[in-house]
Amino acid sequence: MNKPSIPKGTRDFGHEETSRRNYIFNTIQSVFRLYGFQQIETPAMEQMSTLMGKYGEEGDKLLFRIQNSGEKAGEAPEKGLRYDLTVPFARYIVMHRQEISFPFKRFQIQPVWRADRPQKGRYREFYQCDVDVIGTESLVSELELIEIVKEVYRRLGLRVVLKLNNRKILAGIAEYIGAPDKIIDITVAIDKLDKIGEEKVKEELIERGLSEESVRLLQPILALRGTNEEKLQTIADLVKDSETGTKGVEEIRTVLRLYQASGQGNEDTEAFSVELDLTLARGLNYYTGAIFEVKSRDVQIGSITGGGRYDNLTGIFGLPDVSGVGISFGADRIYDCLSALDLFPPESGSQTEVLFVSMGEEEMLNAIRWAGVLRSQGRRVEVYPDPAKMKKQLAYADANHIPYVAIIGSEELASQTVTLKDMHTGEQNRLTLTQLTSYLEQHT
Amino acid sequence: MNKPSIPKGTRDFGHEETSRRNYIFNTIQSVFRLYGFQQIETPAMEQMSTLMGKYGEEGDKLLFRIQNSGEKAGEAPEKGLRYDLTVPFARYIVMHRQEISFPFKRFQIQPVWRADRPQKGRYREFYQCDVDVIGTESLVSELELIEIVKEVYRRLGLRVVLKLNNRKILAGIAEYIGAPDKIIDITVAIDKLDKIGEEKVKEELIERGLSEESVRLLQPILALRGTNEEKLQTIADLVKDSETGTKGVEEIRTVLRLYQASGQGNEDTEAFSVELDLTLARGLNYYTGAIFEVKSRDVQIGSITGGGRYDNLTGIFGLPDVSGVGISFGADRIYDCLSALDLFPPESGSQTEVLFVSMGEEEMLNAIRWAGVLRSQGRRVEVYPDPAKMKKQLAYADANHIPYVAIIGSEELASQTVTLKDMHTGEQNRLTLTQLTSYLEQHT
Repeated sequence: MNKPSIPKGTRDFGHEETSRRNYIFNTIQSVFRLYGFQQIETPAMEQMSTLMGKYGEEGDKLLFRIQNSGEKAGEAPEKGLRYDLTVPFARYIVMHRQEISFPFKRFQIQPVWRADRPQKGRYREFYQCDVDVIGTESLVSELELIEIVKEVYRRLGLRVVLKLNNRKILAGIAEYIGAPDKIIDITVAIDKLDKIGEEKVKEELIERGLSEESVRLLQPILALRGTNEEKLQTIADLVKDSETGTKGVEEIRTVLRLYQASGQGNEDTEAFSVELDLTLARGLNYYTGAIFEVKSRDVQIGSITGGGRYDNLTGIFGLPDVSGVGISFGADRIYDCLSALDLFPPESGSQTEVLFVSMGEEEMLNAIRWAGVLRSQGRRVEVYPDPAKMKKQLAYADANHIPYVAIIGSEELASQTVTLKDMHTGEQNRLTLTQLTSYLEQHT
Repeated sequence: MNKPSIPKGTRDFGHEETSRRNYIFNTIQSVFRLYGFQQIETPAMEQMSTLMGKYGEEGDKLLFRIQNSGEKAGEAPEKGLRYDLTVPFARYIVMHRQEISFPFKRFQIQPVWRADRPQKGRYREFYQCDVDVIGTESLVSELELIEIVKEVYRRLGLRVVLKLNNRKILAGIAEYIGAPDKIIDITVAIDKLDKIGEEKVKEELIERGLSEESVRLLQPILALRGTNEEKLQTIADLVKDSETGTKGVEEIRTVLRLYQASGQGNEDTEAFSVELDLTLARGLNYYTGAIFEVKSRDVQIGSITGGGRYDNLTGIFGLPDVSGVGISFGADRIYDCLSALDLFPPESGSQTEVLFVSMGEEEMLNAIRWAGVLRSQGRRVEVYPDPAKMKKQLAYADANHIPYVAIIGSEELASQTVTLKDMHTGEQNRLTLTQLTSYLEQHT
């Protein structure tokens, strides 16, 4: 038998990693709930017809297909693993529209699978945490998503910048530079601004068929600096002849005004700020209004949250004109940020509090009884299952970071006590059961 | 575009189902943690070499195989979806044995996939909740699993019977009736006692090659009634010449004695009892010691929890002689029991508490501000995102079971108040923000 392994790009999570991941999921989901979002779950596998053609040609190739062992090899598998949470959600809305009361506020925290080439920070199985409002065009939803981002990262202790743009402004810019049909080329190119710099972007734009004049007009927009208000003034002026562009400027103004009015916006700080970024274009073909992206101020890791408004999510499944807006938190990258900055809470709240160590069979019966009493008080307690050597039992407590050890030897048995050892300080106390429970109340 | 659907045997879970399922998972896992079990997670996909041959010929056929879209059709897929949590756990122990300090107490709550024919109560994707101790032969572990079962079902409010047997007793019985080589046939047959009755079991035993004499000797064992102690006396006497059988009786006696000593066993009640069942044989080829099975007293649904001791879990992956004992809670069946008996708590604790209803744009700004204040106090609050008709906004509160609605019209705006409506009683109160927060403190 060869040494067992796991498929490349997948991971085992030990209990420490699992508890840290749960800390992230729980933080995110408790903020979602503060805003009235409700959790749903969809199956890991979807019909291939649901998945195919939704992620572009490249995406189709990255789908994992599922075959029953009973099926003949070569037979086209009709099922595939979920590639994201958005398409299953669109499918869910269409299938369950009779039960749903709109606006529908849902969140979903589940793994997705992609047959991407595995590399540092990129896995074939990873979790997404998606939150969406469906069935309203109100910009209050955009505001709430911004507030959610702010509160999640406040709770996690991560300093972030939320970048904001609007697809309609991008359309307005394309009109302004005289290339309305080139909007996709323009945004694909300027999306790379961070990576390849302004000169290369200009080269790419020329290659993609933009005129020298268009590129000249675009240049000051790429170089735009200043406060959100200054940028908005400039861009409003540039796109003033574009109906769509002007609408986009208005939408951003409204979102920023709501953010001010909410009482949260007065405190743009190092910990959180909203910055207008006219070069932000992610997933353009998809989004129709607001576009969001969140980056850590302190860790270079790319976007840790992103999303936007889409006006026709469910159209692909035959239910047109349902507008929605949503964002997705990338749990793996958030994990890496918290690790890099050592921001995980020291106590995961899941650790065993007391280990009973017994020196014989009779002592162990006492340990079992006492452990039962402590557990009925809600304490997490273990009984070392054998009357092994003291050293071995203490080593177990050490390895598992258990802060207190309650030792029962013959003396303790005779006097119906335990010797409680504080594993950090080494301090020992002989305690009755009543004393033990009050000691733990005071010390934990 | 055809109407979208999901693969047969899979399910969508709306927010009410998800919250009820979470209630079950959370209850189970908080009891696991009381006993010091730590959570791990393994990938959804495993190497086919890890899975094949572990579940018998029938099981191999029920594996879901995974293929990258990039792979050629007909090429043998080398990955498959997890079929249970036990084999991945064995693989995990072998891969991570250097990091693990034994005894290793882990739990795992994740979905598994089987290409079974879907039918009522049987799905192709379902959750298992497994808890195991690895690396000790101590019967204290068996005791703790019994205590865990008792506490989980006490918290869930389900009345259950835990049936207990020992594989060594089954071996002793096979020796006693003169058919030690027929132990598998015997147990396969008597496992059906509940379903087909004693006469049919006897017929099957004869068909399987047992002598008339063997069947005659087995009969009183099948018919054995009485208290646990009475049954143990009888069986101890019958298997007294079998070393293995005698060891099995001793093990059960020890577990029952520990259970008495723990202070829990004195209260065998309608809510929970431990019953010796010498015909219990589930998964015999696997188990080597204790065998457990739990049934609801009030819902006919088969076993809702089961497990046992296995002496060689990791041997298949090249790490022999690691004894372990574990049980698995079947979340789907538990869900069905709680539904049938209407035992889910009325409040899931995830519902929105207050919906702000505003009659105009300016009013909505106030609603956003007030909602922010309530959320900072930890309340789950929604702002209806449009100043729609009052009726529409109240219908949303109704549909989402939101208990309080805070209405802001022009009068409330002018006086910086809300009209708080209790959606159950219809009672209305005009409140300032301070009054609102203290009202909610008193009423929720």
